[in-house]
Amino acid sequence: MKITKEAIELAEKTIKPYIHRTPVLTNKSINEMTGIDFYFKCENFQKIGAFKIRGGMNAALSLNATQLKNGIATHSSGNHAQALAYAAKTLGIKAYIVMPKSSPQVKVDAVRGYGAEVIICEANQAARETALAKVVLETGAEFIHPYDDYRVITGQATCVKELIEEVPDLDVVITPVGGGGLLSGTCLGAHFFKPGLKVYAGEPEGAADAVLSLKSGKVEKAPYVATIADGLLTTLSEQTLGIIKEHVTDILLVSDTEIIAALKLVYERMKIIVEPSCVVPFAAAIKNAPLFKGKKVGIILSGGNVDLTKFGTWFPAIK
Amino acid sequence: MKITKEAIELAEKTIKPYIHRTPVLTNKSINEMTGIDFYFKCENFQKIGAFKIRGGMNAALSLNATQLKNGIATHSSGNHAQALAYAAKTLGIKAYIVMPKSSPQVKVDAVRGYGAEVIICEANQAARETALAKVVLETGAEFIHPYDDYRVITGQATCVKELIEEVPDLDVVITPVGGGGLLSGTCLGAHFFKPGLKVYAGEPEGAADAVLSLKSGKVEKAPYVATIADGLLTTLSEQTLGIIKEHVTDILLVSDTEIIAALKLVYERMKIIVEPSCVVPFAAAIKNAPLFKGKKVGIILSGGNVDLTKFGTWFPAIK
Repeated sequence: MKITKEAIELAEKTIKPYIHRTPVLTNKSINEMTGIDFYFKCENFQKIGAFKIRGGMNAALSLNATQLKNGIATHSSGNHAQALAYAAKTLGIKAYIVMPKSSPQVKVDAVRGYGAEVIICEANQAARETALAKVVLETGAEFIHPYDDYRVITGQATCVKELIEEVPDLDVVITPVGGGGLLSGTCLGAHFFKPGLKVYAGEPEGAADAVLSLKSGKVEKAPYVATIADGLLTTLSEQTLGIIKEHVTDILLVSDTEIIAALKLVYERMKIIVEPSCVVPFAAAIKNAPLFKGKKVGIILSGGNVDLTKFGTWFPAIK
Repeated sequence: MKITKEAIELAEKTIKPYIHRTPVLTNKSINEMTGIDFYFKCENFQKIGAFKIRGGMNAALSLNATQLKNGIATHSSGNHAQALAYAAKTLGIKAYIVMPKSSPQVKVDAVRGYGAEVIICEANQAARETALAKVVLETGAEFIHPYDDYRVITGQATCVKELIEEVPDLDVVITPVGGGGLLSGTCLGAHFFKPGLKVYAGEPEGAADAVLSLKSGKVEKAPYVATIADGLLTTLSEQTLGIIKEHVTDILLVSDTEIIAALKLVYERMKIIVEPSCVVPFAAAIKNAPLFKGKKVGIILSGGNVDLTKFGTWFPAIK
C-alpha cells in the first residue's frame, strides 16, 4: 500500500482525539555547548510515554467492526505493546500481547494495567512468532505488526508533521532507527509536508542493521546485538527499508558510551526522563556536530518508559 | 522589613527578564490514582534548575551600585549557591560561595561554571559561618542569606503568584520546607493574591525542625538530621517562622520511603526529573489524601538538580 499525503492527514485527524500534541522544547545551554539549534519533539510526554501510540492507534482505528470483533494482537517487548493495549482499552476490545520474558517488568505491568492479556514467551524471534501465530489462530484477533505495516508507518508520520508546524524553518530532523517505523514515517512526513527537510537517523553500534541495509540496498542483519538502547534491537523490513533508502540522507552510528553521555545531558540540563533508545539521534548529532553547526535540528525524543532500577548501571556511583 | 503586596509585585517585574515563567503540569493517571486534582508548578525547569533564582536574583537586583561593587557572597550547599552565581554572572559582578565539602560535585561544578569563586569548608554550620565571615571581611562582598532575608522571601513569593494566575480556583498549595524561604514567601503570596488559599508544607521526618517550631512557636532544632531530601536540612529563622506561623495551615511529615515512592511516581508517570527535596510536598499530599480528596492542589516542584550517581541508591537494582 502506497502511503500518500492525504493518508497522513487522515491519520492525524483520526488519532487526534486519543493522543497528546506533545511540546517542542529548546535548551539554551545545550545549544551554546554544541553550536546547534536543537528542537526536541517530546514524545516521552505522549500517551503511554512514547510515539508508538500514533501508529498503534491509527492501525486499530483503521479496522472495521468485523476485524475488531475478536480483538488485536502483537508481539513486542516494549512500547508497541503498550500502544496496542491502550488502543484496545480505548476501543473496548481485547488485546493479546506476546512479550519475551526479557521484557522490563515495568512494561509488562503497564500492558496488564491497560487490561491486555500478556503471553510470555522465550526471548527470541522464532518463539515470538510461534506464540503470536498460536494466539491469532485461537482467538481470531487481528495482528498489528510493530512497524511492518503501512497503517502504523502512516501514524508515525504525524509526529514530524506536528514538528514542522511548530518549527517551519527546520533544516534537519533526526530519529532513532530500530525496525524503521518511525524513520520511514518521518521520511514520508518530511517529503510531503516540507520537501527539502533533511532526514537523518541515529543507530546504536550494537544493533547496526539499518546502516548496513542502507549501504547494500537489501535487508541485512546486525553483525552483533548488544546495546542499552533496548527499543532499537529490531531489523528493518522490506517496506521500511524501501521508504528509507528513497528519502534518508544518512544513518549515523553511536556507541553506548555516547548514548549515556547524551542521556546525562538531557537529564541534567533538560530535567526530563527519556529512554536510552530515545537519545540515540541526539547523541548522533553531537558526535557529528560539524554536519549540523548553526542549523535548526529537530530531534524526535521518542519515549520515556525507563526501568528506574537500571539508573544505577547507567550512572554508577562514584567510589 | 515588612513584606507587602506591592513589594511582591515589584519583585515580579524586577526578576521577570531573568527567569522563566515555568509551566504548570497536570497528570491524568496520578489524579485518577489519588483522587486529588494536582497542579504541578515546575520550578525544576526554572533557570539554574530551581526556584532559588527568584529570591537570589531579586536580592541581587535590590543592591545599589556601591553595594554591588565588591560582589555578593553566601554559604550554601545547593541551589542558592547556583542562584547567586548566576545572578552575579548576569550582573557582571563577582560571587563568593562558601560550600561544605559534602556538597554534590555536580553542584560545585555548576557554581564554578557560572564563574563564581568557590570556597570549600567543613560540613558544619560553624565552619560555614566562619568561612563566610572571612570572605566578606576580605572582599567587602554583600552577604545574601539563603532564606533569612526579606528580599529573598519576596522573590520566592512570585512563584505562587504565577501559579494562582494559571489556576485561579486553586484550593490548596503545598511547598517543601527547609529554612522556610519558599514557604514564608508562598504564605505571603497566597495571603495577598488569593486570600482563603490554604498553604501547607511537607517536611522530612529526618529534618523535622519546622513542625516542632510551629508547635512551640519558637525556632527549634530538628531532633535528628538524616534524610535524602538534602535541600531541606536547614532550620527556620525568626523571620520565616514569624510569617509561617501566622499563615500556614499545617506542616506534614513524610519518611524517606514515602519520598522515594513519590519520586518514582513523578519519574515514571510525569517523565520529569526532580530532586528528592522537591517531591516532599507531593509525598505529604499522597500520605494525607483524605485531607485533599477532590480538591485542586498546587504542588511547587521546587527543583531538579539531582546527582545522577545517586539514582542507584534511590532505585536499587532488583537482584
